Amino acid sequence: MVYINENFLRLQKSYLFVEIARRIEEFQEKNPDIEIIRLGIGDVTLPLPGVCIEAMEKAVKDMGKVDSFKGYGPEQGYLFLREKIAEWDFSKRGVSISPDEIFVSDGAKCDTGNFQELFSNEIKVAIPDPVYPVYLDTNVMAGRAGELLDGRYSNILYLECTENNGFLPEIPDTRVDLIYLCFPNNPTGATISKQELKKWVDYARENKAIILYDAAYEAFIRDDDIPHSIYEIQGAREVAVEFRSFSKTAGFTGVRCAYTVVPRECVGYTKSGDKISLRDMWLRRQSTKFNGVSYIVQRGAEAIYSNDGQKQVKELINYYLENARIIKTNMQGLGYTCVGGKNSPYIWINGRMDSWEFFDLLLKRCGIVCTPGIGFGKCGDGYIRISAFNFRDKVEQAMDRIKTHLK
Amino acid sequence: MVYINENFLRLQKSYLFVEIARRIEEFQEKNPDIEIIRLGIGDVTLPLPGVCIEAMEKAVKDMGKVDSFKGYGPEQGYLFLREKIAEWDFSKRGVSISPDEIFVSDGAKCDTGNFQELFSNEIKVAIPDPVYPVYLDTNVMAGRAGELLDGRYSNILYLECTENNGFLPEIPDTRVDLIYLCFPNNPTGATISKQELKKWVDYARENKAIILYDAAYEAFIRDDDIPHSIYEIQGAREVAVEFRSFSKTAGFTGVRCAYTVVPRECVGYTKSGDKISLRDMWLRRQSTKFNGVSYIVQRGAEAIYSNDGQKQVKELINYYLENARIIKTNMQGLGYTCVGGKNSPYIWINGRMDSWEFFDLLLKRCGIVCTPGIGFGKCGDGYIRISAFNFRDKVEQAMDRIKTHLK
Repeated sequence: MVYINENFLRLQKSYLFVEIARRIEEFQEKNPDIEIIRLGIGDVTLPLPGVCIEAMEKAVKDMGKVDSFKGYGPEQGYLFLREKIAEWDFSKRGVSISPDEIFVSDGAKCDTGNFQELFSNEIKVAIPDPVYPVYLDTNVMAGRAGELLDGRYSNILYLECTENNGFLPEIPDTRVDLIYLCFPNNPTGATISKQELKKWVDYARENKAIILYDAAYEAFIRDDDIPHSIYEIQGAREVAVEFRSFSKTAGFTGVRCAYTVVPRECVGYTKSGDKISLRDMWLRRQSTKFNGVSYIVQRGAEAIYSNDGQKQVKELINYYLENARIIKTNMQGLGYTCVGGKNSPYIWINGRMDSWEFFDLLLKRCGIVCTPGIGFGKCGDGYIRISAFNFRDKVEQAMDRIKTHLK
Repeated sequence: MVYINENFLRLQKSYLFVEIARRIEEFQEKNPDIEIIRLGIGDVTLPLPGVCIEAMEKAVKDMGKVDSFKGYGPEQGYLFLREKIAEWDFSKRGVSISPDEIFVSDGAKCDTGNFQELFSNEIKVAIPDPVYPVYLDTNVMAGRAGELLDGRYSNILYLECTENNGFLPEIPDTRVDLIYLCFPNNPTGATISKQELKKWVDYARENKAIILYDAAYEAFIRDDDIPHSIYEIQGAREVAVEFRSFSKTAGFTGVRCAYTVVPRECVGYTKSGDKISLRDMWLRRQSTKFNGVSYIVQRGAEAIYSNDGQKQVKELINYYLENARIIKTNMQGLGYTCVGGKNSPYIWINGRMDSWEFFDLLLKRCGIVCTPGIGFGKCGDGYIRISAFNFRDKVEQAMDRIKTHLK
């Protein structure tokens, strides 16, 4: 009899987006004339930068001709892309990362989800609350999370991020082995200073722990004192794996490209105390279970690493950042406490009521869709996330509606 | 201390392609004037069909305009593609598969590698020998394979495929829960009749087992009596998951698109005997760890499902099939026993000596690269795999060299 992996049965049902869709549908049926403005899901709305379109058009043509056709590419990604990443995303910022420490993939979701495979099931995992649900769910599937009691898994250490700590996770007073961090944060939009991040790197070095650092929203950072990469912190090469994505940087959510950095110094331990290179383990994992990213897509990603490309990407992000500023200013003007909305496309708003109640208020009074904070963890209750990924006129219209109906 | 998943240490080192590359390099250094002909790796050489190029050029343009831009797509794949697959690959062959049983992915390697995550570690797994190494390696990583003793893992049942059984795995006389089958086979090129395949389906139904059926080379089938899909067998919907790929069908090895079929009737069991839908588990797995295939790539794949597309794909495959025929005829003419080379791009040749010895003979006497059979499992020793994926003139030249030097 083929037994299933019963850890799947421990997953919490992913009601969130189903429930959001149900409430929207019900509202639209009753109010067919109201044009709903969606500021919920974190998906981009502007088309791809011109440099990416040009590069992919050329790459498609390459695939149609005998002399330039490409079959299987390297599982780790083409060197032309990994070299550009090493130069533009790291070397130009004073960080030394070698192309053979970079692994190109089809998404940060896959990489942040799959990386836990490299570790024993006996390690202790720390995960922020609220946060992107993939970190938790993939550990539950692997059988590392324990029992679900009152909305929390028994073996997970939840790093609570609240107004009390400025939405920054605090160093645990017990030992943990694997730590997920996400900055700029999804959903709160909070950022971390070098000084605060150094505390985590030091903790990981002292405890022989590993930090999985999700920097998918790095391109939104504009303030000079916020680190773009965890490798700006001394010692991080020994204890940190970093995830980056072209999804939000260059509007690639539908194109699919990301990368993961695993420095040569990063190690895990065997029970007998031997050090094992995580970079070599990840290479083996990727070579066995993955066959590389589409050549066409990799040529598109490469195109952002040029002066023109960087300019176009910056303009794209600036558009969303201005949306975020407008949202934050307006919500603060109405007396709401907000975090994010600066160096981030997300604004995390204390609704001063249950998440779903505030969701309903925005939907029913203003025809606006947001994401209830409770969907990101227990500490998200009472909050909503508003996303800046929409067109300027929609964002302005949404704010007008809120100012009129929520006063 | 962050402990690693020590199952990774049980993997056999993947010496095969490294060792092949080393021997080629050494030979080329000593013989700089000989042009080596590569008939080793199973990668396509002809450019993409015109219909795919046109569709992807249009899709790239879509991504550059506000009105047609696509962000995140459905994790399961766009309905436009899943509907076409259901119609052209199944319905037109008299098999009923619904679009919501089809999961589009970036490769059959990923899917055949990841699917085992749905099962308990306590199940008994049967894997053919010789076969594509991903089935075994991913079970080793998961901790399901046991100890490695004399080149075999203690918990795996090896389904030996040899000249004695016509390279068809035999129904085991002990109970197994998860069975990997691959037809047309990589590396042997063997195919299976409906009658033989029915025995496996019956076995799986009787034993509440699941068959993971890898049909990545389905497009090479030309004989009418060979099933294109396991769902041509009655009862297979209850016990079989099927993997298909655009890699070999339409030259997509560098474009990356595949799909997996998980029928609604397919179930696994909990320890307490409840039936759990594998389709629902796979949907949850994919939604959690995967973010869909590039919109551009899915448009490219969709294009083969038209009369023009089918014609172009058929011509592409016919080219390789003619290569295969030439290789097989020549090798048989020299007195070698061969399987495959018909309904398959692979010819599996009994070299009447150690795999590596025959590899060296072909390389040193003829300047031809093949793949030593031992790389696919213990039963592959004494064999080599020759691949038909090359240009006609290279294949003919290779055969001339063999006829001259191997007589």
